[in-house]
This record gives sequence, structure tokens and C-alpha cells, in this order.
Amino acid sequence: MRKIFVIGIGVGDPDQLTVRAVQALNRVDVFFVMDKGAAKTKLRALREEILRRHVKGRTYRVAEAASPPRDPAPADYRACVDDLNQAKQAVFETLIGEVKDGETGAFLVWGDPMLYDSTIRNLDALKEAGLAFDYEVIPGITAIQALAAAHKIPLNRIAEAVTITTGRKLADGFPPGVDSVVVLLDGEDTFRRFVDSKVHGDVDIWWGAYLGTPDEILIAGKVKDVAEEIHRRRSEARRANGWIMDTYLLRRATTPSSR
Amino acid sequence: MRKIFVIGIGVGDPDQLTVRAVQALNRVDVFFVMDKGAAKTKLRALREEILRRHVKGRTYRVAEAASPPRDPAPADYRACVDDLNQAKQAVFETLIGEVKDGETGAFLVWGDPMLYDSTIRNLDALKEAGLAFDYEVIPGITAIQALAAAHKIPLNRIAEAVTITTGRKLADGFPPGVDSVVVLLDGEDTFRRFVDSKVHGDVDIWWGAYLGTPDEILIAGKVKDVAEEIHRRRSEARRANGWIMDTYLLRRATTPSSR
Ligand SMILES: C[S@@+](CC[C@H](N)C(=O)[O-])C[C@H]1O[C@@H](n2cnc3c(N)ncnc32)[C@H](O)[C@@H]1O
Ligand SMILES: C[S@@+](CC[C@H](N)C(=O)[O-])C[C@H]1O[C@@H](n2cnc3c(N)ncnc32)[C@H](O)[C@@H]1O
Repeated sequence: MRKIFVIGIGVGDPDQLTVRAVQALNRVDVFFVMDKGAAKTKLRALREEILRRHVKGRTYRVAEAASPPRDPAPADYRACVDDLNQAKQAVFETLIGEVKDGETGAFLVWGDPMLYDSTIRNLDALKEAGLAFDYEVIPGITAIQALAAAHKIPLNRIAEAVTITTGRKLADGFPPGVDSVVVLLDGEDTFRRFVDSKVHGDVDIWWGAYLGTPDEILIAGKVKDVAEEIHRRRSEARRANGWIMDTYLLRRATTPSSR
Repeated sequence: MRKIFVIGIGVGDPDQLTVRAVQALNRVDVFFVMDKGAAKTKLRALREEILRRHVKGRTYRVAEAASPPRDPAPADYRACVDDLNQAKQAVFETLIGEVKDGETGAFLVWGDPMLYDSTIRNLDALKEAGLAFDYEVIPGITAIQALAAAHKIPLNRIAEAVTITTGRKLADGFPPGVDSVVVLLDGEDTFRRFVDSKVHGDVDIWWGAYLGTPDEILIAGKVKDVAEEIHRRRSEARRANGWIMDTYLLRRATTPSSR
């Protein structure tokens, strides 16, 4: 049987992966590479550094395939992700084809495979379609954890809930029933919708970009005070680097009742 | 200056901590121990195993203090946690007092310090009260990640939100506006409220107990089909071991619109 590891590698720091992940890396015969997007060079450099640092006394192969291109501003995001995943499954099948019986392959996933990542879904679809392989998931530190650790903040208020969401969904308003929301995948600085404390009450923000990398930027404060600064720093950094990855926690001054 | 690390150590597997965490462990002069509750023996054993496995060629001290007792069923959970934290701060101050100038101390925190944990809040309160020390947070794998990896599931539906909440809050109903909810701190098997698919639609559950330990139990299915089995297995395991830690993801068949 072929074995595939899906290994969370953290979000930028080559030492932010777990001992379990290091152990798994050292059992891999074929690493799959499928980089894409503006951060491609950065992702590749991180992966190479991780292998250089953590794989000891072992040779391995690298199987590379072009990631299917993605519509940069799809009208229907979910349908687009579905299409993309179908195209990706074909690519996955080719990559897994590089693993011989009894060998082990690995996908190195940014952050943790559970969070806004399609590797698990694609592997399940391929298994369902009859492709023969076993797989195992190794968790990794998410962008959310890197954010909270860098700012030294708890994610939740005492005994309260937290919602994890996307910029696109936050554009519909602060999620109901919670005081804390973590936002990923926001290309639009959607936090700027909450600057008016007359409408939204006071909202605090803890923002971080390039977390875990030498370029890390952290800004925190009341949204109404720091929104413009974040917007400016984000645009500048994005221009300078050609890409940006950022995430943030928003917290309202008061906790709504849950119904 | 005294330096304190707040190190996330994962939820049961001694190799589930990051390389960064291992590096931090190897700079520590004083480890703080403040165990409590039914799982005390287990927590202590995990901590000792982590130090035995990962600290190399270094001597360290252990500073131990009794954790303030907690009202087992407080009427006002939040006020109770506040009181408890005040008592804990006094204990923290004593522990940090064991660290000499230029030395490093460490709190080893279950999972990740950002999630339903008061260490960061207590340290901030002590700093505000004028105690002199620096601290740094090292993320760790949370119970949520251990759950998702063990079941090999994504936490979120494609592009959808997820709410992290407590059993107590889930008792008020399925959080509004999301299809996926992760529940921690549930002593009451609150998922059983969602067995009636006529009221709630079909709800799926992925449940895990003792994640990352040799006693790990995993059950998944439609809540209406597996709720009783989980309830039974949970009661039996809790009786047999004297303690239980469990968490679960609930997912509704349909995604509500966000407003
Ligand atoms: C497709 S999601 C993948 C999340 C990843 N699986 C994880 O566990 O963090 C990508 C989003 O994660 C966040 N992100 C990833 N890496 C980051 C970093 N180094 N700094 C800040 N945000 C990051 C950004 O919000 C980005 O849009
Ligand atoms: C006070 S919270 C602390 C969470 C922790 N900081 C984390 O990052 O996972 C404790 C809750 O975490 C969950 N939990 C912790 N360890 C677990 C384990 N090994 N298996 C299942 N659930 C666990 C349970 O829901 C438990 O009630």
C-alpha cells in the first residue's frame, strides 16, 4: 500500500512544526510540490529550508506539478473552489502516481490542514474514486495561533465563543452571537467596516502579516484608531514584497447574548 | 530581567510539541507546576515525559504550588473564573519569585495558550500590577487540531465560518449564522440536544476523547445515530479513568445565510 502524509508545517517559521511532523518528514520518499500564486517563491523557500533543516541522512524525491490556475475574482467563490478542486484532484492523482507500492509521499500544508485548505477533501475524493492509498494527517500551527502568540493574547474572552471566518463573509457584518472573530483570506481590509463606534460599539483589532517570517508586522488597537495605519502598511508591504498574507482578531467591547 | 516562557505542549502526545517549544524547554531554569483536577496525575506524567524526552544535557528546577480550588458547579461561571484567576495570580507571583534575575521560567500549557486558558491573562495582570518580568508565548497544537487530524476532516466547509464554543453556551442552541461548531469544556454531552432532525435538520458529529493519548476514542456519524453511543462510551471511560477530556465538531447539513 502507498502511504501519504498530510503535514502541517506552520505559517512561515521553519522551526514552527511539531516533533511528530519532523518524524513524518523523515519517513517520506516523495515530497509533492504544487506551488502557486504570488507567494510561490516564498513557499518554496520555506519548504526547502524545512527539508534542509529537519530531514537527516535520507534521500528523497520531489514530484512537482503546476497547480491549476485560479480565477482571481470569481463571481461564485464556492463553485470556483469546487472547480479548482476537481482540477487539483487530477494533479494529485498524477503526483500520487509517483509513489511506488510500499513508499511514502507527503503534502506539506501551510499552517494546519484542517483550516481553509483542500488537501484532505481532495484526497477523500480520490479515495472515493477508487485510488489506492492510505493517508495520515499531522497537525501544524495555524496562522491564528501565530497571530495570538505574537500579540500574546487569548483568542477567546473568558468562557466566550470565537468565530473563525473569511473576509468575504465578514463583509456581511460582525458574526451574530459572538464578541470575537478571527478573519482569514481577506484581500479587502474588511475590518475598515467597523471603524464607526456609534454603529458597532468599540471594536479592538489585533492584526498580523507575514507571521513567523522575518518580515512580520504587528499592529493592535481600536479599529477606529488603527484601521488606516493597517491599510497603509498592508498596501506598502504588499507592493514591496509582491504578496501578503495577513490575519486578524476583532473583538467587540460587549458580548452579545447568544440568542 | 526575568524571562518567562508560556509553552503550548499539545493535548496528550509528548511529541506533539513544536521544535520551537523544544528549543524553549532547553533554555528553562525553572518549570512551574500547578496541577489540579481529576486529570492531575495524567498531566504530571505527560509533563515529566516531555521533559525527559526533550530536555538534553541541562539541569533545571521545578517550582510547585497548589492550584486554588475551583467551585465545581458555580452559579456564575465568569465571576467564578475571575475569582479563580485572582487566587491564581497570587500563586503565579510566588512561582515567578523562584526565578532569579537573568534566569528563565516556564509554564507548560495544555494545548495552545490562546484557547480557553488563563495563563496569558494572569501574567498580564501581574505585569500591570508591577511585577518585573518579560514573557513570550510559544503556540501548541490544540484539542481542535488533534480532533480534526484524528478524524482526517477539515474544520470548515469550503469558504464557510466555524464557531468555537463551550458546552455551556451550546446549551443555548446552535450558534447562529454558522454551519460548523467546535465544542470544548462540555461536561454534559450537550450534543444530545441536536438529535431531533425535524427540529435541527441533520447534524453530523465528529467526537474525540483522550486525543493524542493511548486511550484515544473516536466516534463520528449523524448525531441522531451516535449520540447515545458517545454518551455511553463517555460515561464508561470517565468512570474507568476517573477523568475525561473530550471535544467535538458539529456540522449542520445546510449553511445558514450569515444575516
Ligand atoms: C488558505 S488560508 C490557509 C490557512 C492555513 N491552513 C492555516 O492553518 O493557517 C490562507 C490564509 O491564512 C492566513 N495566513 C497564512 N499564513 C499567514 C502568515 N504567515 N501571516 C498572516 N496570515 C497568514 C491569511 O489570512 C491567508 O489568507
Ligand atoms: C480548558 S480547555 C483548554 C484547551 C487547550 N488550551 C487547547 O488548546 O486545546 C480544556 C478542554 O479542551 C479539550 N481537550 C483538551 N485536551 C483534550 C484531549 N486530549 N482530548 C479531547 N479533548 C481535549 C476538552 O474539551 C477540554 O474540556
